[in-house]
Amino acid sequence: MSGFRSYCPDLAGTKERVALTTFESHHLVTTNRARNGDVVVAFNGLGLEWDTLLEKDDRKEAILVRKQTRSHPRPSRQVILAIALVKGKTFDLILRQATELGVIGIQPIETKRTQIHLKNPEAKVEKWKAQLVEACKQSGNPWLPTIREPVPLSDFLNDSSGNSSIVASLEDTTTPWNELRLSESVTLFVGPEGDFSNTEYDYLRKKGVQAVSLGSNVLRTETAVTTALSRVFLMELKNAG
Amino acid sequence: MSGFRSYCPDLAGTKERVALTTFESHHLVTTNRARNGDVVVAFNGLGLEWDTLLEKDDRKEAILVRKQTRSHPRPSRQVILAIALVKGKTFDLILRQATELGVIGIQPIETKRTQIHLKNPEAKVEKWKAQLVEACKQSGNPWLPTIREPVPLSDFLNDSSGNSSIVASLEDTTTPWNELRLSESVTLFVGPEGDFSNTEYDYLRKKGVQAVSLGSNVLRTETAVTTALSRVFLMELKNAG
Repeated sequence: MSGFRSYCPDLAGTKERVALTTFESHHLVTTNRARNGDVVVAFNGLGLEWDTLLEKDDRKEAILVRKQTRSHPRPSRQVILAIALVKGKTFDLILRQATELGVIGIQPIETKRTQIHLKNPEAKVEKWKAQLVEACKQSGNPWLPTIREPVPLSDFLNDSSGNSSIVASLEDTTTPWNELRLSESVTLFVGPEGDFSNTEYDYLRKKGVQAVSLGSNVLRTETAVTTALSRVFLMELKNAG
Repeated sequence: MSGFRSYCPDLAGTKERVALTTFESHHLVTTNRARNGDVVVAFNGLGLEWDTLLEKDDRKEAILVRKQTRSHPRPSRQVILAIALVKGKTFDLILRQATELGVIGIQPIETKRTQIHLKNPEAKVEKWKAQLVEACKQSGNPWLPTIREPVPLSDFLNDSSGNSSIVASLEDTTTPWNELRLSESVTLFVGPEGDFSNTEYDYLRKKGVQAVSLGSNVLRTETAVTTALSRVFLMELKNAG
C-alpha cells in the first residue's frame, strides 16, 4: 500500500476530475511531495476508490484525474468500538489501530472511572476525524470509521440494541470465545484503565452484553482493544470458512 | 491486579525473608510509596509468587517477609516473538504489549529494511530487560520473557528449528488461520515497517515458516504484533476446548 492516498468524500458520481480540499492538497503536495503525473489513489471512505493521476500539483487545490474506479464491499463484520476515554496519546493510538483493523465506528464513552473531561467536544471530534482519515490513508482501509462525541455508557447502551455486544472483562465468569455467537454487527466495549465499576458491569450484563476474557494478565486499554478486535475479526474468518 | 509488585529473581528456596535490590527498593518505596505493613507480591519471573508484607521500607534495601507462596504453571503455549527492530518508542510499546499478552521470549532481528543500528547492544538489552520487568509488574504476568541482542534473520532461523513458525504477511498466498497447525512452541515473525524483502520471504518459506494474513489493510508493526499474538493465544484456547 505504498504510494499516495487522498481522501475525497465527494468522489461518488460521474465526474472525471476531482479537486482536493486545501487540507488534502497540502498533505499531498507539500507534505508528501507528490508532483504532476504521479499516481494517487483517491478514496471516499465509503468503499469507493479511484486510481488517478495528479494533474495539477497545487498546494491549495490539487486536481486529480480519474483513470480507474474500484469499489470495496462493506466489511462483512461491522464492528463498533465503544471505548472509554483515556489519556491523549493512548487514545490517539487506539483510534489509529482500530482504523487499521477495520472497525466501522468508534464511540467514546464516559464511565465512572473516566478521568477526562473535554473542554470542547466538537473540536475534539473534528481532530479525531482527521486522525481516522490519516489512519485510513496509511493502512489502505477504504472504509472511514465514524466517530461521535462522548456519551455516558448508559445512554449508549440504551441506543445500541440489535447488535451482538461483548465486553473485555477481568471478571471471573466470562463466555469462552468458541461459544460466542456473534451477528454481523458487533459492539465491543472496552473500559478505562481502572476498569468498569461493578455497577457498570451489572448494567452491561442486564443489557445482554457478553463478557469475554483476554487472558489472565491485566491488559492496558490499548492492548485490550487490538487483542479483542483481532479475535472478533478472526471469528468472522472462522465462520466464513 | 492492583497493589504493589516487586521482582525478585532469587525467590526460590526456603527463606522467609527477601531483600530487594536497590533498583526494586527504590521503585517500591520511593516511586510507589509502599510503607511497612503493606502487602507486596514478590515474583521471580519464573512462575513463583510470594504474598509478602513489607517489613522494612528502606529505599535502598527493602525487606519483604513471606506470608504465602503461589506457583503459576508455565504457559501451555510458549510463544517467541521474533521482531524486526523498529524505532524507539514503538519498540518499547511492542515489548510492553508482548509481555502483557504472555510471550516467553522476544528476539529482536536485523532485516534488510531494518534501519536501526545499536551503538551499545549490551546496554540496550539491559534497558529492555528493565522494561519487561516493569510490564510484568503492571500486567501481573508471573513469567518474565527473555530478550537477547539482535541477530540477523538468517542466523535466528537456523537456530530455531523445532518450533511451529508463522510470519505475519502481506503476500497473496497465506495459510488460513483455521488450517494452521501449531505446536506448543510457536515462533511469530513480524517484519519491519517496510516489510520483509522478497528474498527474506523466500528464506522464511524454505525454513517452513507459515505465512498468515492479518486482513486486507496494512498494519503498522505494533498492530501486527498484538493482532497476531492475540490469535495465536486464541488458537490455544480453541484447541484446549
